[in-house]
Amino acid sequence: MVTIKDIAKECNVSIATVSNVVNGKNKVGAQTQKRILEAIEKYGYKPNLVAKGLRSKRSGVIGIIVEDMAQFTTPDIVEGIMHRIEDYGYKSVLVNLRFYSRWSDTWFNDESMLESTIKQSLSEISSMQADGLIYVAVHGRNVTKIPEDIGIPAVMTYAYEQNPQVPSVVIDDELSAYTAMKYLLEKGHREIAIIGGRTDNLHTQLRLKGAVRALDEYGVTVPDDRLFYVKWNRDDGYKAAEELFGRDKKVTAVFCMTDRMAGGVYQYLYDNGRVVGGDCSVIGYDGQSISDYFIPGLTTMALPLDRIGDCAARLLMEKLEGIQSGIELKDNILAIPCEFVERESVRDLNADKG
Amino acid sequence: MVTIKDIAKECNVSIATVSNVVNGKNKVGAQTQKRILEAIEKYGYKPNLVAKGLRSKRSGVIGIIVEDMAQFTTPDIVEGIMHRIEDYGYKSVLVNLRFYSRWSDTWFNDESMLESTIKQSLSEISSMQADGLIYVAVHGRNVTKIPEDIGIPAVMTYAYEQNPQVPSVVIDDELSAYTAMKYLLEKGHREIAIIGGRTDNLHTQLRLKGAVRALDEYGVTVPDDRLFYVKWNRDDGYKAAEELFGRDKKVTAVFCMTDRMAGGVYQYLYDNGRVVGGDCSVIGYDGQSISDYFIPGLTTMALPLDRIGDCAARLLMEKLEGIQSGIELKDNILAIPCEFVERESVRDLNADKG
Repeated sequence: MVTIKDIAKECNVSIATVSNVVNGKNKVGAQTQKRILEAIEKYGYKPNLVAKGLRSKRSGVIGIIVEDMAQFTTPDIVEGIMHRIEDYGYKSVLVNLRFYSRWSDTWFNDESMLESTIKQSLSEISSMQADGLIYVAVHGRNVTKIPEDIGIPAVMTYAYEQNPQVPSVVIDDELSAYTAMKYLLEKGHREIAIIGGRTDNLHTQLRLKGAVRALDEYGVTVPDDRLFYVKWNRDDGYKAAEELFGRDKKVTAVFCMTDRMAGGVYQYLYDNGRVVGGDCSVIGYDGQSISDYFIPGLTTMALPLDRIGDCAARLLMEKLEGIQSGIELKDNILAIPCEFVERESVRDLNADKG
Repeated sequence: MVTIKDIAKECNVSIATVSNVVNGKNKVGAQTQKRILEAIEKYGYKPNLVAKGLRSKRSGVIGIIVEDMAQFTTPDIVEGIMHRIEDYGYKSVLVNLRFYSRWSDTWFNDESMLESTIKQSLSEISSMQADGLIYVAVHGRNVTKIPEDIGIPAVMTYAYEQNPQVPSVVIDDELSAYTAMKYLLEKGHREIAIIGGRTDNLHTQLRLKGAVRALDEYGVTVPDDRLFYVKWNRDDGYKAAEELFGRDKKVTAVFCMTDRMAGGVYQYLYDNGRVVGGDCSVIGYDGQSISDYFIPGLTTMALPLDRIGDCAARLLMEKLEGIQSGIELKDNILAIPCEFVERESVRDLNADKG
């Protein structure tokens, strides 16, 4: 089947331009319009009729609900969304639920307290007559935030939506942690500690699963006393390092499930006269902007935030404009791996032997 | 004159509660409502009648236009705004102009290219029937972004709006840089270098002015070859340090106009075996989250982002609800100083002598 992409390629214009012509928007020069209409005729391109039928009611606005804009993950996901939807001529408005700012982390185990806030934000989005909705969660968990009767296409990001109408775009935590741990193992490390988040947190669970898969492949075990479940921050990373190295001098590498935790480990090692990447290796996770400033540079797994936003927008555009995204969902989920960022914080023990 | 604050204090309730009663909103318990009405009677409180006259048309929504959400200054300003307006029962919607994302820094000297984007966002805000507008700029400069005929109260943040109807809430760069430089001088430093941004940038100019005021008080001069005008980032901080220390071994302290530049100086000193806070002192500016991870800790001036947002919201509420903000403007501007954050990156040379 001929798609809008093929027409755009043939005419050497953007998809948005073809879309404008198909939808009779008066934005395209006469010459270009003629070329596009001829290509449509020639290749027998049929715009998505269901989508077209709905178009006359459209506002051209996508609603974005974010759970907390002040969390570091949110702005980059939103940027990815906006970049893509603007390519298709859509605008966006954003509503910020301020979960952490309002309730710190008290809402983790009782999300029912959030219901009225979310309901209100959905009604705001609806009163703007948004054509579609993207919801940006602040941490990965199973949620039911998008009601079945919402009436517009929606996509969840950074959490797993249970509403079967709504696809979810998330990090592939299992694969990313597998990659990170495998890297430590390939560099010859066998005495490894892991600093993770809360045990009931899905990110912790999946990252641990991935790390253990790599360890198993090398026949290496991380005993319980080298495994820490703490808060995701710098102070807790420091305390874990203090406890670990206070009793255990054999560990050569620490896998930290956030860069912030790694920052605490760096500080502990500095305070105790030990050199990161020399006496002890550290690997982080998140690729936050802070990680650019660690000395020596922190090797880490960078969250694919921009891509999460981009893919969510493409899935939404598929529903709204009938433009094939080319994205294959598995159980209604797209899991995107982190990008491996190699810097200087992990020592190659093989090189020492060689 | 009795204000809504006095009534709230007298009744031991929030301003929002008094506001709800005054405006006949059915949100307050009967007992409390009775107490508030009695206090209003007793003290002869007169709600702002102009504001009240307009109220029936209100949506309860504040529009926030941000120039670029992906810039580190934006989310905290927005958080400050939202926190405060929600206290008064307002909601908000946000439109992101994506200046840097769309045009990198090509728009610095020709803001006319932004006009249609801003016009569109103003019409979006207007179609939401927002009661008020707060505009969040990405860098300090004289702007005319809010048209005179906008028809709703508006406040500018992080830049200087020329429309006389619109107050501006900005950083007090002059005073903050004065404080930073004075600190270096008090710690005994006399051989000082300065790494600043572009010369045509208002932040650079004001920070330099403040720094020079402190230097003058101590009769110290920073010669031109110790004064750098570079980009605000880490790489440029590194290059400036390389050039400086390559020819000048006497400098004991570097004042960097961003933490990111300071990150580059840290890296240069590390690469050359010199110890920050020992062999050379460094002071930063911004108080970005990255600065929490510098080792040793970076002494810096933290931007009052949350307070900028908070004060902007209070100025808007003053116009909308007649609630005295207590904020005194000078030439229609409120300039808020940075918060001084003392860590370990500046050596006390007096202590060495003593």
